[in-house]
Amino acid sequence: MKHKSLESDECAVARSLDAIGDWWSILIVRDAMGGKRRFGEFQKSLGLAKNILTVRLRKLVAEGILRLEPASDGSAYQEYVLTEKGEGLYVVVAALWQWGENSLFAKGELKRAIIDRSTGKRLPPIEVKSADGRVLGLRDIQLTLADQDVAT
Amino acid sequence: MKHKSLESDECAVARSLDAIGDWWSILIVRDAMGGKRRFGEFQKSLGLAKNILTVRLRKLVAEGILRLEPASDGSAYQEYVLTEKGEGLYVVVAALWQWGENSLFAKGELKRAIIDRSTGKRLPPIEVKSADGRVLGLRDIQLTLADQDVAT
Repeated sequence: MKHKSLESDECAVARSLDAIGDWWSILIVRDAMGGKRRFGEFQKSLGLAKNILTVRLRKLVAEGILRLEPASDGSAYQEYVLTEKGEGLYVVVAALWQWGENSLFAKGELKRAIIDRSTGKRLPPIEVKSADGRVLGLRDIQLTLADQDVAT
Repeated sequence: MKHKSLESDECAVARSLDAIGDWWSILIVRDAMGGKRRFGEFQKSLGLAKNILTVRLRKLVAEGILRLEPASDGSAYQEYVLTEKGEGLYVVVAALWQWGENSLFAKGELKRAIIDRSTGKRLPPIEVKSADGRVLGLRDIQLTLADQDVAT
């Protein structure tokens, strides 16, 4: 299905969705964060048809989320690596992980966890906080017109 | 296009994508967070065909992200309201907003902002933090097998 392009949408969420291109492309980003770099690695992980994976990888490269690099082992392959912009998506991926972990798994069902490498401990829930450190819930925040209402 | 269902995927990100159902359904969640409740309000905001919006709303209700309620004004309409589970997605939506804000808009182009209601100030960047309060970047976290490696 063809969607209305949200490329020039005034909402940053809509424009983010447009840049990533497809829901499932988040899984490519997830795999790239986990160290996967080659077409075959993504294909094996995601079980996607080659033509579909090709389209999604091209879109992510065109949007500057992934970039192509020569293979790290000197072979003729090219590798897909997250750009700085792409790496910025890790907060989104980690937040999606935690939402799923809390909402979609039975107790004990989830066999994987995001850990802090330096301590081996589970990542605590990601919190939305105010400038002075208060935890903000959904009702504490508001989307508004930037130039009218925002104290900076 | 039909996707492989990720409903019982062992990855919480994949299962989250499956529950939400479609990339663009995040925009329904965004609108519900902003106070929209009626079919017509979502339709006007999203510009979706009725049948497509119907499918997505049903999916979100079936997954327990939205629930149906009688209209708040006593009319015959039904309203869609976020469940507690659905409200939990606000971290994901806010993280997507901030990524887009940082990565996809020219300086001064974005006319809206997420603010802290109590102060009117812009929301600071959402940070991923360790249990002892250190800010963790992409390279500081790792997805691992929960039962083998996680100190709790």
